[in-house]
Amino acid sequence: MNSATDTICARATASGIGAIAVLRISGPEAISILSTCFSKTLKDAQSHTVHYGELSKEDGTPIDEVLVTVFHQGKSFTGEESIEISCHGSPYVQQQILETLQGQGCRMAKPGEFTQRAFLNGKLDLSQAEAVADLIAAQSKKAHQIALNQLKGNLSSDLKVLREELISFASLIELELDFSEEDVEFADRTQLKELVARVLSTVRKLAESFALGNALKNGVPVAIVGAPNTGKSTLLNQLLGEDRAIVSDEAGTTRDSIEETMNMEGILFRLIDTAGIRETEQHIESLGIERSQQKIKEASIVLCLGDATDQNNLSETQKWTEDLSATYPDKKIMRLINKEDLSSAHGAKGISLSAKNGTGIEDLKSEMVKAVLGEMDLENDTIIANARHHEALLQTAEALEKANTGLHDGTTGDFIAMDIRQAMFHLGSITGDISTDDLLGNIFSKFCIGK
Amino acid sequence: MNSATDTICARATASGIGAIAVLRISGPEAISILSTCFSKTLKDAQSHTVHYGELSKEDGTPIDEVLVTVFHQGKSFTGEESIEISCHGSPYVQQQILETLQGQGCRMAKPGEFTQRAFLNGKLDLSQAEAVADLIAAQSKKAHQIALNQLKGNLSSDLKVLREELISFASLIELELDFSEEDVEFADRTQLKELVARVLSTVRKLAESFALGNALKNGVPVAIVGAPNTGKSTLLNQLLGEDRAIVSDEAGTTRDSIEETMNMEGILFRLIDTAGIRETEQHIESLGIERSQQKIKEASIVLCLGDATDQNNLSETQKWTEDLSATYPDKKIMRLINKEDLSSAHGAKGISLSAKNGTGIEDLKSEMVKAVLGEMDLENDTIIANARHHEALLQTAEALEKANTGLHDGTTGDFIAMDIRQAMFHLGSITGDISTDDLLGNIFSKFCIGK
Repeated sequence: MNSATDTICARATASGIGAIAVLRISGPEAISILSTCFSKTLKDAQSHTVHYGELSKEDGTPIDEVLVTVFHQGKSFTGEESIEISCHGSPYVQQQILETLQGQGCRMAKPGEFTQRAFLNGKLDLSQAEAVADLIAAQSKKAHQIALNQLKGNLSSDLKVLREELISFASLIELELDFSEEDVEFADRTQLKELVARVLSTVRKLAESFALGNALKNGVPVAIVGAPNTGKSTLLNQLLGEDRAIVSDEAGTTRDSIEETMNMEGILFRLIDTAGIRETEQHIESLGIERSQQKIKEASIVLCLGDATDQNNLSETQKWTEDLSATYPDKKIMRLINKEDLSSAHGAKGISLSAKNGTGIEDLKSEMVKAVLGEMDLENDTIIANARHHEALLQTAEALEKANTGLHDGTTGDFIAMDIRQAMFHLGSITGDISTDDLLGNIFSKFCIGK
Repeated sequence: MNSATDTICARATASGIGAIAVLRISGPEAISILSTCFSKTLKDAQSHTVHYGELSKEDGTPIDEVLVTVFHQGKSFTGEESIEISCHGSPYVQQQILETLQGQGCRMAKPGEFTQRAFLNGKLDLSQAEAVADLIAAQSKKAHQIALNQLKGNLSSDLKVLREELISFASLIELELDFSEEDVEFADRTQLKELVARVLSTVRKLAESFALGNALKNGVPVAIVGAPNTGKSTLLNQLLGEDRAIVSDEAGTTRDSIEETMNMEGILFRLIDTAGIRETEQHIESLGIERSQQKIKEASIVLCLGDATDQNNLSETQKWTEDLSATYPDKKIMRLINKEDLSSAHGAKGISLSAKNGTGIEDLKSEMVKAVLGEMDLENDTIIANARHHEALLQTAEALEKANTGLHDGTTGDFIAMDIRQAMFHLGSITGDISTDDLLGNIFSKFCIGK
């Protein structure tokens, strides 16, 4: 149990004007500090109860009529004695209250400090704490689902199983070491090999899920490229269709951006540099120009648009998609043949569609979704979406591979035990069983203030 | 007691991403609707208690881990059974929860509908309900103070006193009417005259406070005008000084605006069309051009800047300020003599200052504050800041003047009683003792959704 000695405060709801706003206080003096400026005494208030009263400045000037919620130590989000103040949603009122609380001994919270305290007090492990930030930022159903699963501890329990297997492995190896003078192999090395192989396979599968998790979390970048007049802007409009409004309703998702986004089957797709498409459609633009190349580099999915009415273009597009597939084996390069309503391009490979009247668009969308999900079973597989977790899993896998090699080469137990301990260290860093101040500072500083 | 039959829901905190967000439900089915999608049963939950659990969609898909606060009928802001849901501050999560609540029978609240229900259920009178909106929008100490006083019922109780005086007046007059056959004046008309005069004087004073209240609520528009090179942009920078940051910290106060704002002694001053000053300072701009005239029309305070080093300019400015004062008797026209560090303009009337080195600026600021506050005692006088209240007070005064004239002219009691009833009607419309659906619709539609 950590014991922070200071009491922190911050606004917890979004900035700007709302009907109400919520401010948070957490720390050993939360109730006593609030009591100095609140019209009711809260010292006998039970946890999880709400109290109506007036908040005033030190000099007695009233600030607002508010609802105060009391959370006792051990029963709050942070694990500390906490207060939530629900005030009128005026930035002025919020500022006055925060100033008053600071005057009474609160310190303004640093970004993520409430969640950091929750972690330090054992209310959340590190991967769950990180899930809080992901959950808040989630813009699509799948991103939300991954974050919520992680918050609920699905990843944590998967990792716990792995860790326990490694602990039992380590104890077997160390038992062998204790009797090493007698040159006896207590641990059944066949069994150990199986165990390392099993753990390694699970760790690799988790690490590999990051490609999908990251795409789901941050959106899947899609580039639309093609020669002029192949119908790129028409295709863009067809793809966005009625979905566009859903996304652009959310503040900040598309603002100041040259991207358009669309949600399909709960996955966010980010259409890269679509402003360019609309601007340059009428200008000379060849497949090979720099702008297209840049878009392709940023994309996970590339839609290469060919024109069914132009045999020359079709050949060019085919050659180009083949080159791209060879150059970028990790990207999904999709060849589309547009204007199927005007001419059928018999024998041309790709998804035949009409961007103008919409035929074939559903096929395209379903191929795009398939390209993202691959073989993953989102309902049952744990997906990681955090670059730090990915890095730690890769390091875990590396240590396990060393141990595995050692087992096969007949390396002595003490070296293998060292590799296993290294693997446990990296695995433990994900949930924060192993952590450093630097690591924690780095993680929580990326949070918003008030979280 | 009103009895709304439907249950409404809305987001109550500001839009955008925050650590947490709060959604509100109010109406007879609030608890039972929430119970369909919440992991805990709340039917035995006490009022003002907070419950942690999981919110899910109809099909069981989890949405978020939330805190739910229960308010029983008669004990909530609206007076109805109410629920507040504190969820993670993601727009996606909020949208999912609101959709689920609607699927379970909630209706999305109209703007101001929660406050309207509070009014209809007698939790607030109309002037207090209006104060809620003003409090949320308040950007300065004084605007905040006026709104909070009004929310606490200061205006309401002033009006109640007046109303009671008029009721006792009306009953005296009506007593006289009952015995009118006997041609006896029961009511002492001298006493009645005094009473009407007293009420009228209070009503007039309240009505007059609107000029100040409106200025404090919306900010005091200030124009800076003067010939080129008299130092307008330097003065602007001096005035804004370090205060500028305080105001521009608040989202939305200056964005997309050509105004700059400053807070002095809790009063918000809005410097009109300052973009123009910065842009045109170097260009030819005479005192008489259209742009200056427009700024002056919009301003309550006009700062006319003269140049102490230029005798010709000083004479022009003096003439001009005199003309302006004559044309706009309601505006405060202030003549400033800049560059006092370079030349002393003996005998020139006005506030002598140096915009460059800051001398005289404090005098100017204190004159500006004085120009706004006049003789008003903000601590003790009730100030109205709502145009609807102002209008109602003017109509009250008009009816009282008629009654007053009638008393002096010896008009019979029944006519006077009619005037008094008219006065009471207008007075009652402020607090909503008298109200119509149209009036209520008009008032609450200006609120934000969720309030």
